[in-house]
Amino acid sequence: MNLKSSIRTVVDYPVEGVRFRDITTLLKDPEAVNYCVDQFHGRYKDKNIDRIAVIEARGFVFGSALAYLLKVPLVLIRKQGKLPAETVETSYELEYGESRLEVHKDAIDESDRVVIVDDVIATGGTLNASIELVELLGACAVECATVIELIDLGGRSAIAPVSLFNLIAYQEEEI
Amino acid sequence: MNLKSSIRTVVDYPVEGVRFRDITTLLKDPEAVNYCVDQFHGRYKDKNIDRIAVIEARGFVFGSALAYLLKVPLVLIRKQGKLPAETVETSYELEYGESRLEVHKDAIDESDRVVIVDDVIATGGTLNASIELVELLGACAVECATVIELIDLGGRSAIAPVSLFNLIAYQEEEI
Repeated sequence: MNLKSSIRTVVDYPVEGVRFRDITTLLKDPEAVNYCVDQFHGRYKDKNIDRIAVIEARGFVFGSALAYLLKVPLVLIRKQGKLPAETVETSYELEYGESRLEVHKDAIDESDRVVIVDDVIATGGTLNASIELVELLGACAVECATVIELIDLGGRSAIAPVSLFNLIAYQEEEI
Repeated sequence: MNLKSSIRTVVDYPVEGVRFRDITTLLKDPEAVNYCVDQFHGRYKDKNIDRIAVIEARGFVFGSALAYLLKVPLVLIRKQGKLPAETVETSYELEYGESRLEVHKDAIDESDRVVIVDDVIATGGTLNASIELVELLGACAVECATVIELIDLGGRSAIAPVSLFNLIAYQEEEI
């Protein structure tokens, strides 16, 4: 499946010099979206995964359907101030800017085997913060799964020793 | 299925006097989540639906799995400034505060039959704004689907003549 043909590249968004890989055009192609979800499902269905953790907001799109297929609980990793009960939180640097992420303390049990899902890995800052949250709650981040890897930004080594499973990769200058 | 037993009520969140119905505890129960998605799927599978539109961010959770099952395109309705390409936008009042919503102009085609999904309907402000966006693009909002209806807040009549399909309802003072 040629996923890249469904992904739009927006130049200079959200700031000058960034080539933003926009998955909203992929979402218009149900065969492509379902291929992504099915690839994730195939990867994790026999791996004794206890939780799918999804990162606000585009991670929700791919991870929710995955949790449905795996029949496992879904964990929302959200921006600061969006979760109503007791949380653990961490701050991290983005490709452009800084932010905080939170997760409910009761969303993950100790020793859970957790896969973390997002649409894109860039520098790995968001995924690394998410791994930290999972581990703060005593659980194991088994792997991070993304549709897209921006390989020049070093996210894969930033999240090591946690592994990355991605479906496609872009080089920075790729059109 | 007793969905209410999986939903947490948080008192005085996000502001004093509000009983916030928290679906993150529902997400810990895969049988309950999958029941919700399957109810939506049963409702729409033979209704010639062209698009599922999901409202940031909790609408993404239920609507993404629904679009997967229906094999139809998914449309992201997002807060202002999150979509990289050309959008239409509208402002609306929340139960507490005011906000703006956007959708990509190319996410919906004229004459599409669209179901709009969110987790909760309160006053109906967010769903009404979403209906407006769908109609601005020349499409038809067939129905709004939510897990929860907060019946005392009048959302159902606020979105009329578009109909509401919900799975459970709460009265304001319900514990």
